[in-house]
Amino acid sequence: MALGGGHGLHATLTALRRVTREVTAVVTVADDGGSSGRLRRELGLVPPGDLRQAFAAFAAEDGGRLWAEVFQHRFGGDGALAGHAVGNLLLAGLFEVLGDPVAALDEAARLIGISGRVLPMSPEPLEIEAEVTGLDSRDPGAVRRIRGQVAVASTPGQVRRISLHPPAGADRPPAGCPQAIDAVLGADVVFLGPGSWFTSVLPHLLVPDLHDALVRTSAAKVVVLNLIPQPGETAGFSPERHLDVLFEHAPALRVDAVIADRDSVPDPAGLHRAAGRLGARALLGAVADPIVAGRHDPDALAGCVRQAIGEHRG
Amino acid sequence: MALGGGHGLHATLTALRRVTREVTAVVTVADDGGSSGRLRRELGLVPPGDLRQAFAAFAAEDGGRLWAEVFQHRFGGDGALAGHAVGNLLLAGLFEVLGDPVAALDEAARLIGISGRVLPMSPEPLEIEAEVTGLDSRDPGAVRRIRGQVAVASTPGQVRRISLHPPAGADRPPAGCPQAIDAVLGADVVFLGPGSWFTSVLPHLLVPDLHDALVRTSAAKVVVLNLIPQPGETAGFSPERHLDVLFEHAPALRVDAVIADRDSVPDPAGLHRAAGRLGARALLGAVADPIVAGRHDPDALAGCVRQAIGEHRG
Repeated sequence: MALGGGHGLHATLTALRRVTREVTAVVTVADDGGSSGRLRRELGLVPPGDLRQAFAAFAAEDGGRLWAEVFQHRFGGDGALAGHAVGNLLLAGLFEVLGDPVAALDEAARLIGISGRVLPMSPEPLEIEAEVTGLDSRDPGAVRRIRGQVAVASTPGQVRRISLHPPAGADRPPAGCPQAIDAVLGADVVFLGPGSWFTSVLPHLLVPDLHDALVRTSAAKVVVLNLIPQPGETAGFSPERHLDVLFEHAPALRVDAVIADRDSVPDPAGLHRAAGRLGARALLGAVADPIVAGRHDPDALAGCVRQAIGEHRG
Repeated sequence: MALGGGHGLHATLTALRRVTREVTAVVTVADDGGSSGRLRRELGLVPPGDLRQAFAAFAAEDGGRLWAEVFQHRFGGDGALAGHAVGNLLLAGLFEVLGDPVAALDEAARLIGISGRVLPMSPEPLEIEAEVTGLDSRDPGAVRRIRGQVAVASTPGQVRRISLHPPAGADRPPAGCPQAIDAVLGADVVFLGPGSWFTSVLPHLLVPDLHDALVRTSAAKVVVLNLIPQPGETAGFSPERHLDVLFEHAPALRVDAVIADRDSVPDPAGLHRAAGRLGARALLGAVADPIVAGRHDPDALAGCVRQAIGEHRG
């Protein structure tokens, strides 16, 4: 199974589906931007955008290329629908008709005819808050709090730490999705990343029930690192810094393997040390797409995935 | 096959699907109201609402009840999406992705897994114009021209005649959909109605290519009359008046049978005479839904459909 969001999760799912048909995606629901953000605010629903990415990845692998294309299609123009992804609207409709997002996602998988399962990390829309430094030119060390995925992902400051909040007014931690927790506990291998580190990858570790399941599960845990730092939230981050930040947010979590692209790691020894702090071995492979910068090659990543799974089973 | 639009077409298709799996719907594309009208204006597409109704009817009969429900679901609230039907948005997305409405509708049928075919009467959005009397209290006979389906369907005046226009600027009659014309020429039986008489039923006769195919086809032609006059466009119309209006709009068209509800015909002899002017026999059956006023009972209507088809074949 794979935890994440956005294009990063799309890449992992595409690779995983080339290794096995039994893939479950657990997807972040903290987006507040674009089409997802508008649906979330207008209809009070779990933001569907990252869920849609997972469906599109599964549909493309299962031969439903037209479904994948229609799901990802965004209306143009400058009217009320401009920018909305068709898949987001269809998922939003299913959420409203069936009431429960998990039931709606399972039905969507059946309707579209995909073999994978898509689950939200939480059945409720969540909000990211970040502690950011570097926003105050007179006091670069001053910590400011920034709310919302878009604000965090695009901050010109340095994100130090994130936290995750339930819908406004709820005086409790964010709820985990029970089916996602069961999936983590029953998985053979759990993949985390790649993706926007603070806004798509780490949020899963900040849902207490999901974090506890990740700590307890007997599944192998594999972290897939990004190829290049993201402008904004992880500008200037080394591969090691990504792992250190993960450790700072979930010190109890042990990891079995870290997959990184050989050509994206300037200091292999440093990465091995950082992986070691999580209990993990670092697997350096040629997993970058040779044409599109910053994107993983699905077949190459699938090869590393096979290696990581094989070592766990072996 | 069945020609029409809206709830009326939904009723005919539901009944027809209980008689045969080989049903083609040819659907009006002159709507300019509600969700369809907004999509038409915002994205320049064929209005999808009546097409959606046909899909929902097929999906419900083919076991895709959830698809039918999701297609018909309308977003609530008071935001940008309020009132949009999910099926309209999905069809609009397919129109944009595939470019051609017929290809998009065929793919939608495949994606949803229905056995029927849904075609537009024209590949372009059309506009209805009506000649209406009774709008001027000082001169009740004065003829005014009213443009647009919503305006025509809700006029407080009496609609005398309608005409159909291609997209603004096109100096030619409305184009027929070639696949719809082929379907008419190849059909065993063609059903017309029930439905909003001036805005869903008669428009098909005003697409010249489609009209000519209806005149030429060797298929049996069956008109299904409404149960009650519609407020607005056919307020106060008797069943005979519906047939007379049809004759006035398409004098060359011969009809084989007219299906009417026994309890909705105050003057059976008058109806038989009006049917005779079209060359048709009138079949009076108990086809009204015993619970919902103004709606046909699908099974009872299917019985009449079998009778009409049997007489044609016999």
